[in-house]
Amino acid sequence: MAMNERFLRACRRKPVDVTPVWFMRQAGRYMPEYRLIREKYSLLEICYQPELAAEVTLQPVRALRVDAAILFADILLPVIPLGLGLEFAKGEGPVIGKPVRTMEDVAAMRPVHAETDLGYVLEAIRILRGELNGTPLIGFCGAPFTVASYMIEGGSSREFLKTKMMMYSAPETWHALMEKLSGVLSEYLVAQIRAGAQAVQVFDSWVGTLSPQDYENFVLPYSQRVLAAARAQNVPVIHFGTNTATLLPLMKRAGGDVIGLDWRIPLDDGWALLGGDIAVQGNLDPAVLFAPLSEIKTRVHDILRRADGRPGHIFNLGHGILQHTPVENVKAIVEMVHEYLPTPVVER
Amino acid sequence: MAMNERFLRACRRKPVDVTPVWFMRQAGRYMPEYRLIREKYSLLEICYQPELAAEVTLQPVRALRVDAAILFADILLPVIPLGLGLEFAKGEGPVIGKPVRTMEDVAAMRPVHAETDLGYVLEAIRILRGELNGTPLIGFCGAPFTVASYMIEGGSSREFLKTKMMMYSAPETWHALMEKLSGVLSEYLVAQIRAGAQAVQVFDSWVGTLSPQDYENFVLPYSQRVLAAARAQNVPVIHFGTNTATLLPLMKRAGGDVIGLDWRIPLDDGWALLGGDIAVQGNLDPAVLFAPLSEIKTRVHDILRRADGRPGHIFNLGHGILQHTPVENVKAIVEMVHEYLPTPVVER
Repeated sequence: MAMNERFLRACRRKPVDVTPVWFMRQAGRYMPEYRLIREKYSLLEICYQPELAAEVTLQPVRALRVDAAILFADILLPVIPLGLGLEFAKGEGPVIGKPVRTMEDVAAMRPVHAETDLGYVLEAIRILRGELNGTPLIGFCGAPFTVASYMIEGGSSREFLKTKMMMYSAPETWHALMEKLSGVLSEYLVAQIRAGAQAVQVFDSWVGTLSPQDYENFVLPYSQRVLAAARAQNVPVIHFGTNTATLLPLMKRAGGDVIGLDWRIPLDDGWALLGGDIAVQGNLDPAVLFAPLSEIKTRVHDILRRADGRPGHIFNLGHGILQHTPVENVKAIVEMVHEYLPTPVVER
Repeated sequence: MAMNERFLRACRRKPVDVTPVWFMRQAGRYMPEYRLIREKYSLLEICYQPELAAEVTLQPVRALRVDAAILFADILLPVIPLGLGLEFAKGEGPVIGKPVRTMEDVAAMRPVHAETDLGYVLEAIRILRGELNGTPLIGFCGAPFTVASYMIEGGSSREFLKTKMMMYSAPETWHALMEKLSGVLSEYLVAQIRAGAQAVQVFDSWVGTLSPQDYENFVLPYSQRVLAAARAQNVPVIHFGTNTATLLPLMKRAGGDVIGLDWRIPLDDGWALLGGDIAVQGNLDPAVLFAPLSEIKTRVHDILRRADGRPGHIFNLGHGILQHTPVENVKAIVEMVHEYLPTPVVER
């Protein structure tokens, strides 16, 4: 089997030679070659220049021998053409210049046309398809809830209080915002696929702050719209969140060929909860990458043992690679996953 | 039934007239009478002066008619006699002056004698028992994991990376730290009970960052020690955490008469997972307290309906009251809970 087929086959729950592996945030500050580029360009400057974004996307593919590339971009890029403003303050994460709080704010959001307003992302995809030499390329967007939470809070949040206040106290504003946003994100994701993305991931990174009831009423229909739009393009769709142990059945209902699991739920338990008719991705704690190799290996093998060679497991972390992660440990994990062969069971 | 018996009876899963209710962080900055005192004294100054700590503890009992008082203190007070230093930087939360990172740091931790080193807390308890007029008083401490995480990180954390690095890369240091800390916390909690606390809560607020496997290996034995020490004093013990959907069976094994649930798991699902032989506390999302009363009522009633009048439910939030919470909404919830009568089911 060509190495390039593993990832896409696993998304479809087809048998593979070895478990495919890639990492969320596999391009980034933990890599010296990325830091070199960041000395000259800001994060947004890299995103805006397709050649640079493509180069950064390729860095981990070259360095790590992962089974998939993921486009270098930020889930908040669509808020720029929406007219909200986006900056990355040093050490503070994203800052939204004009947060969305009222129905007037929602109405003032400008229409977005992915082909023109986010054309630089699509151009990076086109460049990458020419340079990737067969390694599949994953496109992505934030899920409506996670993007909305940044738009409402004005940046990162711990409690998501303003977001929940809009849901609970001004539900018509919330629904209007999610309606618009899910339209924009659907179009953006479809445009990425048309530009050449061979799979897509929808990041609902912070959705685990919600109760299942709130997820069902305030989030599910909008995630469903985005996921369905992507799926209609006949590429595999990965649906990811963290802290989602109690949300998994609803996330499955919202859609996706693959559900991302974090380390808080053992991979086999999560997969059992979801059912055998869906693929799973995950689920090593990113903090483990700072441990000695022997400890990393025990934990990588534990996850592979729980997956038990069933078709439909993509190895990944439970969230993105952390900033100071040793590159050699990331590389070692790729080798561990590719070298893993389930040993025949003599006695249990 | 005397109103004062509800809370303690519910902890023991005995029938009660109406569901008892109290709130984590029910004394604090959302109350104008607390802010008046904070104009003159810092948080630590209030803790250090038993008369002030007692007064602040009584404020919500007077204002809200809750079924239990919880001692005003901070889970990090024990780090002061341990010699690590504690400050509350404006808007930044706790800062530990000398974080614990190495075996030498663990060895350098000073022995703590609750009666002398934390006598001001015990004195506040003694004063409160004289003034509470029968309302039961809850003592508390942080669980070893949560306190250790502050000691290692040096303050609040999102990723708990340094904490996990110690677990994974220097387990002997981790176990030595947890061994010492669980001894200190056990003695502290027992001293609170001897001083007059009629129930205790062990706050493992951030333990939900761990996988079940890590919880079992690195946390459970130490939580167990603290919980067992308190339980041996024959008072009800509440074991609380957030983000714990996948940890609940292990938290039950660690101990406690009551397990705290957060809003991420529906109360009935959480209770079913734990089994009928244990009481539960929770689980309204603190963000709901910012919603209109009609919305609050729907959600309060939903929780009570899920508890279904079974003995052993204590109404509370899934985490502490947030800073700008409207006091009148907190008061209204107490009334809603006390007035709730399950309506006879005509048809289902």
